[in-house]
Parts: sequence; structure tokens; C-alpha cells
Amino acid sequence: MQTHEARLDALRAELARRGLDGFIVPISDEHMSEYVGAYAQRLGWLTGFGGSAGSAVVLKDKAAIFVDGRYTLQVREQVDSRLYEYQSVPQTSPAAWLGANAAAGARIGYDAWLHAKPWAEAAEAALRSVGASLVPVDGNPIDAVWQDQPAPSPAVAVPHEDRYTGQSVAEKRAAVAEWLADKGADAAVVTALDSVAWLLNMRGADVDHTPVALSFVVAHADGTVDLFIAPEKVTPALTAHLGNAVRVQDRAGFVPALQALAGKTVAVDPERAVAAVFHALEGAKVLRLTDPTVLPKAQKNPVEQAGHRAAQARDGAAVSRFLHWLSIAAPKGGETELSAAAQLLAEREKTGLLRDLSFNTISGAGPNGASPHYSVTEQSNRAIEPNSVYLVDSGGQYLDGTTDITRTVWVGPDAPPAEVKDRFTRVLKGHIAIDQAVFPVGTPGGALDSFARQFLWAAGLDYAHGTGHGVGSFLAVHEGPQRIAKASGGQAGTGQGLLPGMILSNEPGYYKAGDYGIRIENLILVEERTIAGAEGTFCGFETLTFAPIDRTLVEVDLLTPAERGWWNNYHARTEALLAPQLDGADLEWLRTACAPL
Amino acid sequence: MQTHEARLDALRAELARRGLDGFIVPISDEHMSEYVGAYAQRLGWLTGFGGSAGSAVVLKDKAAIFVDGRYTLQVREQVDSRLYEYQSVPQTSPAAWLGANAAAGARIGYDAWLHAKPWAEAAEAALRSVGASLVPVDGNPIDAVWQDQPAPSPAVAVPHEDRYTGQSVAEKRAAVAEWLADKGADAAVVTALDSVAWLLNMRGADVDHTPVALSFVVAHADGTVDLFIAPEKVTPALTAHLGNAVRVQDRAGFVPALQALAGKTVAVDPERAVAAVFHALEGAKVLRLTDPTVLPKAQKNPVEQAGHRAAQARDGAAVSRFLHWLSIAAPKGGETELSAAAQLLAEREKTGLLRDLSFNTISGAGPNGASPHYSVTEQSNRAIEPNSVYLVDSGGQYLDGTTDITRTVWVGPDAPPAEVKDRFTRVLKGHIAIDQAVFPVGTPGGALDSFARQFLWAAGLDYAHGTGHGVGSFLAVHEGPQRIAKASGGQAGTGQGLLPGMILSNEPGYYKAGDYGIRIENLILVEERTIAGAEGTFCGFETLTFAPIDRTLVEVDLLTPAERGWWNNYHARTEALLAPQLDGADLEWLRTACAPL
Repeated sequence: MQTHEARLDALRAELARRGLDGFIVPISDEHMSEYVGAYAQRLGWLTGFGGSAGSAVVLKDKAAIFVDGRYTLQVREQVDSRLYEYQSVPQTSPAAWLGANAAAGARIGYDAWLHAKPWAEAAEAALRSVGASLVPVDGNPIDAVWQDQPAPSPAVAVPHEDRYTGQSVAEKRAAVAEWLADKGADAAVVTALDSVAWLLNMRGADVDHTPVALSFVVAHADGTVDLFIAPEKVTPALTAHLGNAVRVQDRAGFVPALQALAGKTVAVDPERAVAAVFHALEGAKVLRLTDPTVLPKAQKNPVEQAGHRAAQARDGAAVSRFLHWLSIAAPKGGETELSAAAQLLAEREKTGLLRDLSFNTISGAGPNGASPHYSVTEQSNRAIEPNSVYLVDSGGQYLDGTTDITRTVWVGPDAPPAEVKDRFTRVLKGHIAIDQAVFPVGTPGGALDSFARQFLWAAGLDYAHGTGHGVGSFLAVHEGPQRIAKASGGQAGTGQGLLPGMILSNEPGYYKAGDYGIRIENLILVEERTIAGAEGTFCGFETLTFAPIDRTLVEVDLLTPAERGWWNNYHARTEALLAPQLDGADLEWLRTACAPL
Repeated sequence: MQTHEARLDALRAELARRGLDGFIVPISDEHMSEYVGAYAQRLGWLTGFGGSAGSAVVLKDKAAIFVDGRYTLQVREQVDSRLYEYQSVPQTSPAAWLGANAAAGARIGYDAWLHAKPWAEAAEAALRSVGASLVPVDGNPIDAVWQDQPAPSPAVAVPHEDRYTGQSVAEKRAAVAEWLADKGADAAVVTALDSVAWLLNMRGADVDHTPVALSFVVAHADGTVDLFIAPEKVTPALTAHLGNAVRVQDRAGFVPALQALAGKTVAVDPERAVAAVFHALEGAKVLRLTDPTVLPKAQKNPVEQAGHRAAQARDGAAVSRFLHWLSIAAPKGGETELSAAAQLLAEREKTGLLRDLSFNTISGAGPNGASPHYSVTEQSNRAIEPNSVYLVDSGGQYLDGTTDITRTVWVGPDAPPAEVKDRFTRVLKGHIAIDQAVFPVGTPGGALDSFARQFLWAAGLDYAHGTGHGVGSFLAVHEGPQRIAKASGGQAGTGQGLLPGMILSNEPGYYKAGDYGIRIENLILVEERTIAGAEGTFCGFETLTFAPIDRTLVEVDLLTPAERGWWNNYHARTEALLAPQLDGADLEWLRTACAPL
């Protein structure tokens, strides 16, 4: 295998050949996807970094890699400090770093198919202020030197049935057409893969763990749609499903179709469409508006809600079987992060309905659990030691719903230390506070975030990630636009009002570097609440995820009577929901795990 | 007295004479003050509106008045609906309304000495988009038709001693000079009256309830300062206090001095400097930066903190004497909002140290209490009925500190209704939650706001104002930049991190329109907390305000043991602090009011 040093040298030689003084390497694709296909894993190939968010800047004589607080530890393990400076965002940014490190007159390349337009504008301004310039490249220079770069996935796209979506493609097309009329626009460009998938009730297998097909859409005011997708992905079943109002074309037709919109009024989402889309639309009047599918996709309809409940119940049973297995196997020693993740996958596969995991299982033993977005590899694989903390964050893709659950368990046989119980119970109290929150409809997610942190704060502790993200329906496990997080630090989505039907994760945590990590995560559904005498519309959360939380980690004296009541009620519901799916020793374990505290 | 209709007619005639199709009337002065001198009360003169925030737009054939949620009820009582449409901000804005109502080609006037630059830019853009234009006027057209307009106050400016400020003018000038060097600027324009007063340790009496002198400052990188102020305000004592490094000039010299900065780099605060300042600086390189005095002014030094404690203790004793008087007088009937406010003023005056109230006392009986910013007048004055809720929000200006306290009491003799007790106790629980909050240093105030609302939200209730504002030291009772409030709805300051030394109000409430209002307000001081094992720097609040809260309104069963502990501890401290200042029946009343719950 080529070393990362050799790859960096090759890239620098390619940049020199093109007359560039630097290049920016994000983890991104032509759709601004959060998780990208293997062909687009350019940052990982170049640097060895295995996280899902980050970027690098390569100059002639220095380079830097930029990651957020989730990856502070991981980047130091995976990326060679002799090749790359470690930089933290949001404390700095590639643009700010370039402002400080690019020489006057430097030409810094970027791939306009991998960056949002506002990003490009900000980076351009930062470089201009130091006399340097940002230059779009013609073809990504990494692709030129990445000899065994995987080809984009050839997987076919398939219809997703109305019994799962609850709304037909025709209804969705009509809603977008109505939105276009309301905005006075002729067309909307839809480039986010999950938006295209949602709009056309179509799923694919081009991106790990997110069932989407690489494609673009232009939706027109007359209710028709142009779909740009590789022809080999289009089966007769898909063609029949899409009908005559959806014109299917090759991906190569996308840019010409955008150019043909010159003179028209076109809605484009600056957060979701890459800069290259804006370049192709230079002749059109562009309205920068949020993709019209984003809010209806986030607000699950009753059919989608029912699907989620079914998927979570099925998934919770699989997780419970796994937790039972773990409670026996782990204290004996000999299990590892990889073997546990494999066991959990096997339990999910036993449901017979698992289509994929919804993300790489975070299987973190002891200190590895302190990396909130740790991803286990053969190299990092760690034994699950007796008398240690083990954290597992995982989820499944089912046709009726996407799951995401984190459980933290104490691996016996001894009793856990008081500190771990104290931290776990504070995280639990925060989790309960979010689950039980009642708030005016439309309250921004950011306004609830402190509820989750207050008990850690009281002890001088905190966690360096958000509390909740949106979740799709057999789609992306991280779905916008809503989010529960601190408002500062570039947490897009904290300002989005929470509306009935939105699904969020509820996942406060605590991480002690070098020692252990704690996180408790369930999915929750925003529901309207009927409150006698209420002045206005108020909402609360329906809990969607049910699987036992480790009672041995609870410091019962730290719970209020109401919190203890929550625990007992949650576990009574868990037992009632999962018992019919379990039997034998699994069932017995469930009953013990769900007994009142 | 001229009718408001006649005033509106006169203004329209004046606008026609100047070839204007409309004019915007804010409550503002040349310093973007929150409270403005009588000469600048143009909105009140024109429309009759007595609130402290709002604006009007006058077109040829229609006019509208814009107020926020605090004034929804009040504006309907004070402003003639035949002359002005009622409009709510932030749901709409003068600019948005003009966009919908101004004709193409219309010339809408504004006074560039009364509006911030970003406001003018946004209004210009809104009008341009409908083919109309925004035109700065030469002299305010209201001044031309307001025959008995008061002259600006002739009060003198006086030194404010270092024993109150804790920092000399020379030290403050040096700190601004250092800031200018850091920003690469030659000068900073300081136009906010409280910023000028803070920087020069100077106080005045030109604005009701805020001890400031009408003046402008240009601070230079060499540490010298130009002060622009009416010569009759400058006493020999002030001249001696300011010393040679402060050059005193007439206000008329301000614009020429700005013009003389052409070619220089000048820092101007776009939130605090009016558009006219930017116009005068057209030849300079303007850096839009927050006024360099804003943060140091907000972070009180130890001397200022000690002053606040002394002022609050003195003020709490006065409020307690008043509450004792009220507990006897009010249940008999015959007292009114005005008589109670007069009694409270008399008790504050008895301290011998009161310089002014810090704002117009909000003395709200029954339904008048439901207007959060109600201001009692001879016309609105309402009897304090037996068996009703009475709310009083007031504060004093003392040389050592500015106070702001709200108490809500049940006027007997009967017991209060269960609903009022329930609402009061929910407000109290929110107040306690803020008072007891612990949070990472720099947490934005907006992240704490929901703590105050959660118990009301649980019952489907809320309040339409912020939870806390900054407070000055013998300066403005509303002082930026920090604020505890919902992040949405244009609540500037919610994003400012809370830092040690900042003082805030803690004032959740509940308002039942047409019935009663509840608010419980203390001032709190951000202090660093020592927490064993803390990971990072954490802060909490020191309570500054001590006066009994009405125990008859507490539904004790709704309190947790910790909340009851807070109540008992708070009242024990109140008794200990105030008892030495009270005697006889006042002292006896205090002891009863402060007994454990």
C-alpha cells in the first residue's frame, strides 16, 4: 500500500503540474452528503483519517487537517503529525487557516462539485483579503493520482412502496409544484440524495448505510420532474413506478439542463447544492431557498410514524438479545469491540428485515468509548475487559424505519465505581429531561439543549457534541433541518422550530478521555400535547426506542421521584413491547432488566 | 392641547412641503438610547403612545404604529385606531410594512440621527425592491411642527468617583488605546451615552432615570479622547476630573471631527452609532466593531460588585418597608397604583441616597399587571382592590449601584385562588432554576432561558418577554450586551456568552390578559464557581436582590425539597441582611415574611 506520505507527494506534484499552490480536500460528494460513497472518500485516502467529518488543506510546504471536537482524539491516532498539523473547528477553519498561511499571490484550488456556494464565497473572501485567490479545478486532482479509486456504485435504484412512505410520488410532486407557484419560481433544483429519494419514493444502495441512489432532480412548476441518474441504475420497475411525469435522463444531462434554465427563476438550496450548480445556473435568476422537500421529509406522516414504531420495536428486541449475550460473554473476557459489533449485527440480521446498518457501529470499550464518534477497525480493536465501561451506538435500516440507539453498560463481574455511576446517572437525568420536555410548538431545538446538560454542568462537566439530530424514514440517520444542540459553534439546525412529526435522537453523554465514555440514546417523536387550559399549542415527545438501560450504572439516590417514575414506566413499556418477541433466557433477562428500580 | 389627529395632519403637511411621501418615527435619539430625553419623545408626542419601545410610519393616506408583545394591550388603549393601524413586531417591521404599502416612486424620509446604519441599509433595500426610496431628511420634520418641544436638558455633567467605579479614567483610556492598537485602528467613535459615561467616569441628568450626559466621544490610539458636549454642562470640577488627555469641545464640533478622520481607520459600533455618524465618516476606513467599552462595562469589577451589594441591600430594605405598608393599607381598599408607587418612592427617598428611579415604576393592579411594561398615568390609574393581584416592578439609582426588583403580592384579606397560586409557583420555580443554574463560562444567555419557562410550559403557559437583561452600575437599568431570552424574535444579546462580573435580571412572569400579572425579579451576578473535579471553568449566579417574596402565593406542594430549601435559605439571608436596617413593626413584619416555608 502506498504510504500517506507518498500520496501527499503525488498530490503536490499534481498541483504543481496544474500551477496550483494549494488544494482543499473535504469529505463531500456532488450532493453535499454527510456520508459519501467510497469513490468520494478522498480525505481518508489522502490522510488516513477515518472519521465522517473533516477536511484538509495541502500547501506546497505544509498541510493541515481540520476536525471537530468529536474527532480530537481519533485524528491524532490516525493521521501522521509529520505530514499534517491538527486543527480544531470551529475554533479555526480551512478558510481562516489559509488566510494565515497562504502567501500573497497564491492560487488555492477547490473542487466546485464538493463545496457549498456560501463556503466558496467565504473562502474566496478570506483568500482575497490576503492577496491570494480561490480557483475552481477542472477535474479533482486527487482523482488524477488515486490509482485504485473505486468507481461510483453500480447498484440499481428501486421504488419505495407507498405503504411505507404514506404519500405517493404524484402527491409529493404536486406539493413541490404548489411551493414553486407560491415562491414565483419556474423550477427547483434538488441535489441532496435523501431529498431526491424522498420526493420520488425511490431508494438505492450507492452510499454506505444510507439507502439512496446517486442522482439529481429538477422539479418544474407544472408538476413534472427531470431525474438525472446513471442509466444502468434504472430498472423497468423503477420506470413504471416513476410514471410519465418523471423524465429520466443520464447524469451527464444535468449541467446542460441547468444551463437551459437561463432566463428562468430557479430555487436552489445553498446549504445543499454545490457551488458548481450555481455556476451552471449563472444565466438564471436564482432564489436561495431551502429545498422544498426538507420540511415535509422531516415531519413524518402517520404512516411513517407507524413504520418507525414497528422498526424500533423490532430493533429494540435485537438490541436486547445482544445486551443479554453481552451480559454473559463480556465479564468472562475474550470479547472485543469487533466481536461485539458482529454479534449485534447478527441479532439485527435475525429479524430477517434488516437492509443495512444505518451507520458504522460505534463499539467502544473503555477508553475507546471516550471518542464519541469512534469507529472500530482491525487496528484499533480493543478487548472488552471485565470491570470496564462499554459503549455501543448503532442502528439499522429497515424498510419501515431507520433506528439509532446507544447503550452504555458496565461489564462486571464487580460493581461499577462510584464515579462512573455518578456520571451515568447525570447523563440519564439529562436524557429524561429531554424526553419529558413540554414546549410551545415551534420552539427551536437549541432552546431545549441545556435541559440535557444541566446535571453535568452542576458537577462541572459537559459533553462536546450535540444532544439530538433528526432521523429519516429508511433514509439518512442524520437528517435535517432540526437539531438539539448548543446554538454556538456552527450547529446548523438549532434554530429550526420543532414541529409535530419530527423525529430526533436524544443522546446526552459524558466522556473521560483515556478512560471511558457514556451515552444514552433513544429516538423521540415530536407530538402535539393536549393540556387542559393551555394558552397556545404545546408539544412533547413520544419515546420511540425501547431497550433496557443498564440499571447497575444508576445511582438511585441521585434520581428524583419523578425521574425514578420515568425509569420504571420506560422499562415497563419496554418489557411489554419486547417480551412478545423474546423467549427463553432472553425473555428472562429482559424481565430482570426491566424490573422496577 | 392639540389633538393627535391635528399633530398627524401637521406632520403630513410638513412632509408634503418637503416633497416626501412618508416618514418614519422611532423612539430614539442621536445616541441610540433606550430611554430618551423629553425633546426626543417624538413618537409619544405624535401618537400618544407612552411605551418605551415602538415606532410609527406615516404615509399620505395611512399610518401604522409598531410595538412588540410587551405593548400589545397598551397601544390599543393609548393610540387612536382611526389614525394608526396596530402592527406587531417582530411579526412585521416598518421596513416590511413599507414594502407592502409604499407606492412605486415614493420618497420615504428618515432622520439619519435616529436610526442605526444596518436599519437604514435594510430599509433602503426593502424600499428599493418596490421601486420606492429612503431619503435622509435635513432636520427632523416633527421638530418643525412640534411647537412646544422641550429643549435638550441643560443639566451639568459631574465626575463619578473612583471609589464607585473601581477604575480611573486614565486606566480606561489606556485600555481603549490598547484595543485600538490590537484592531489596527486610529480611533473609535463612542456614541452610546452610557459608554461615554463609563469611559470618562462621568454622570449627568439629561435622560430620565439614566444618569448620563448628552455627549459623544472620539477615542484615539494615543490614549487621548475628544469629548463633544454642550459647554454649559462642563463645570470646573468636571474639567479637573477629565484632565489634559481629554479635550472638551462643543457638540457642534462632532461632525467636523468625524470628517477630519478621513483617510484614517476608525472603529464604529453599527448597533450603537446612528447612520449619520457613518455618513460623516465616508472618507475614513470604517471597522464595524462593538464599542470597546461594552464588555468591560458589563463585567463589573470588585468595587462595582461591592457597590451593587450595598445598593441592593439598602433598596431591599426600602422595598420591604413598602411591602409592609402595602400589606396593611391595600386590603382595606382606597390605595391606587399611583398612591402605592408614591409610597414606594418615599421609602426609597428615606434612604437619603436615592439619586433617581432607574425607570418609571410599573405599578399594576389586577388587569393592569397583565401589561408587562405598563406605565401608570392619571388616566390609567386603577384602585388596588382587596382580594386581587398587585405587581410592582421598580428600581433606584444610587451612586454605588442601580437596582431593579419586581414583587407580586396577593392583596387580602381572603386567601388567593388556586389558579393564581399555581401560576405564581410555576414562575417561582423558573426563577429558582435560573438563580441556581450552573453552566460553562461563556454559555450564551439564550441557553439558560428555557430553565425559567419549563414549569409554565408543562402547564401549556408561557410569557412574551425575555427572562433577563443586563444592568449598569449607576447607569442604564437595561445594559447590554448579555441577555437571557428566547433566541428567536430579534432578541439581541442572547448569543453573548455570560462572563464573571456580568449582572442580569432574573424575571420570569405570567400574564393573564384582563385579569392579572405575575413577575418575580431579582438581580443576579455571574460568578466563577469552584467545583471539585470540574473539567473547565464553570459559573453560577450570586443573588444580589433581597426582599421577601409573597409566601401566601406559594403552592408549597408544587415545590421540590431543593426549591423549598432555596426559598428558606433566600429568606434567611434576606432577614439577616435587612433586619439591621429595619425596626418596630417593619422588623416584625420582615421576620414573619422570612419565616421558613
